[in-house]
Amino acid sequence: MNFDSYLSDRKKRVDMALREYIPPEHTYPTIIFQAVRYSLFAGGKRLRPILCMAATEALGGSADDVLPVACALEMIHTYSLIHDDLPAIDNDDYRRGILTNHKIFGESIAILAGDALLTEAFRLLANPDHLKNIDAAKRLDLIHDISEAAGFFGMVGGQVMDVQSEGKEVDLATLHYIHSRKTGAMIVTSIRSGAVLAGGKPSEMEALIRYATQIGLAFQIADDILNIEGEEKRIGKSTGTDRTRGKATYPALVGIEESRKKGRELLDEALSALVSFDEKAEPLRRIARHIVERDF
Amino acid sequence: MNFDSYLSDRKKRVDMALREYIPPEHTYPTIIFQAVRYSLFAGGKRLRPILCMAATEALGGSADDVLPVACALEMIHTYSLIHDDLPAIDNDDYRRGILTNHKIFGESIAILAGDALLTEAFRLLANPDHLKNIDAAKRLDLIHDISEAAGFFGMVGGQVMDVQSEGKEVDLATLHYIHSRKTGAMIVTSIRSGAVLAGGKPSEMEALIRYATQIGLAFQIADDILNIEGEEKRIGKSTGTDRTRGKATYPALVGIEESRKKGRELLDEALSALVSFDEKAEPLRRIARHIVERDF
Repeated sequence: MNFDSYLSDRKKRVDMALREYIPPEHTYPTIIFQAVRYSLFAGGKRLRPILCMAATEALGGSADDVLPVACALEMIHTYSLIHDDLPAIDNDDYRRGILTNHKIFGESIAILAGDALLTEAFRLLANPDHLKNIDAAKRLDLIHDISEAAGFFGMVGGQVMDVQSEGKEVDLATLHYIHSRKTGAMIVTSIRSGAVLAGGKPSEMEALIRYATQIGLAFQIADDILNIEGEEKRIGKSTGTDRTRGKATYPALVGIEESRKKGRELLDEALSALVSFDEKAEPLRRIARHIVERDF
Repeated sequence: MNFDSYLSDRKKRVDMALREYIPPEHTYPTIIFQAVRYSLFAGGKRLRPILCMAATEALGGSADDVLPVACALEMIHTYSLIHDDLPAIDNDDYRRGILTNHKIFGESIAILAGDALLTEAFRLLANPDHLKNIDAAKRLDLIHDISEAAGFFGMVGGQVMDVQSEGKEVDLATLHYIHSRKTGAMIVTSIRSGAVLAGGKPSEMEALIRYATQIGLAFQIADDILNIEGEEKRIGKSTGTDRTRGKATYPALVGIEESRKKGRELLDEALSALVSFDEKAEPLRRIARHIVERDF
């Protein structure tokens, strides 16, 4: 398989669907649609939607059938980035090389754009115009799973602990709590959603969730390493923005070499979780490698 | 009927259910549960949940059967208050006589508390442990309706226009846009949810939605009048906080006497919408009067 064209094709489908689901920029009141579209189309790699589609495809399902769910996952991810970047939280002026939402639209609109995206994600998941071939009870379960992953005991809980831990000594257990919830929970629910919609059997679900858990942690470790190394290249010293902020990171706790080793171990475990899957799971395998090589 | 005991009984049921649905304050990470509970139990009058229950009861349903939906509506309302009070939006230090969420817990936790409440509302609506006697397809429709009322073309859209209109000359059409979305949409969806769950017929739904639309606007007009009169009593002049901020209000546009007259007209229309309902709709009638008398 040509993995690059797989990724660009799936990304294109997500982008097209998102453009269809989110009202155009000239919709009244225009500023909120401009703000939402600005962040939604700011060059995201669509990891979560692609994981959802790849999980469905690994079980013989069709990527297009899960597009609304894939897009809802991306909306939730984008809302979390807009809110995380706010001055009161991470106070970031730039993301992916362009100004953050509140730097362009102001803080009030950025808060409301995040709120609207989160709300819209659930509207999409419940929309009677979409996912017509999916049983209503299964869709309810999906909404429950995704909201759990995004909420108190998932993404928001992880972000709370992250905010609370800034500038403090953090142990590995707390770091694991933050990682597994702040990014891990939504990655796991992305895989789970795609697998559930393709009618995954319990053993398949178990294997895919194991895969997702490993790559979720690997993703965060890779991100932490990149934060240090990216900074090293730019300013020639080993302090990245995470370190400046006193953010808890894996390399800060166990060192960069140990972190790389952990990343490779997690990759091995993720791949071994897929051992009984056939070539339809090849995109999932390639995504795992891609993550550890820090290309996501 | 004893209306006061009706209100206090329904409020008590909502409060008890909310305490059950939201994890206790000692749950890890504690600060987010403290923050959420602080605002959720800050003395709200539970108008939206009571409207939902009263609509169900007007059609012969049982208030307890819709409690999870009633509570989800209150969670969404509370999230919107926490975010509206933030320095970047209304910058309010007090609400209902106590400090606002961000004054106690800080801005970052207040943002996340709002995010968590919105997410949790949808989790509750989709939770397989609740609403077991409601058809899954109907529950999906409910989630779709409520998210629509809370989103771009409902509450968030109204709030966007409110923020955008501050300090500007606003005409009656814009003011109506703000009112009908910022507060009206969630009031209408509260009534609609309760009515749908009780199996309301099309003619009943139409009448109840008409009732809800009138009281939604009446509620906002009453709130605007109270903002002026409350302030008058306190500082002895006719400028309230809305006026200081250049907020668009009904009395500012048409005058206070005309606003009172409009409130009475809306009450008459709301009551006439219920003319074919029997004594089971008495709580809805009393709520409408209560709103116009500015006791809500």
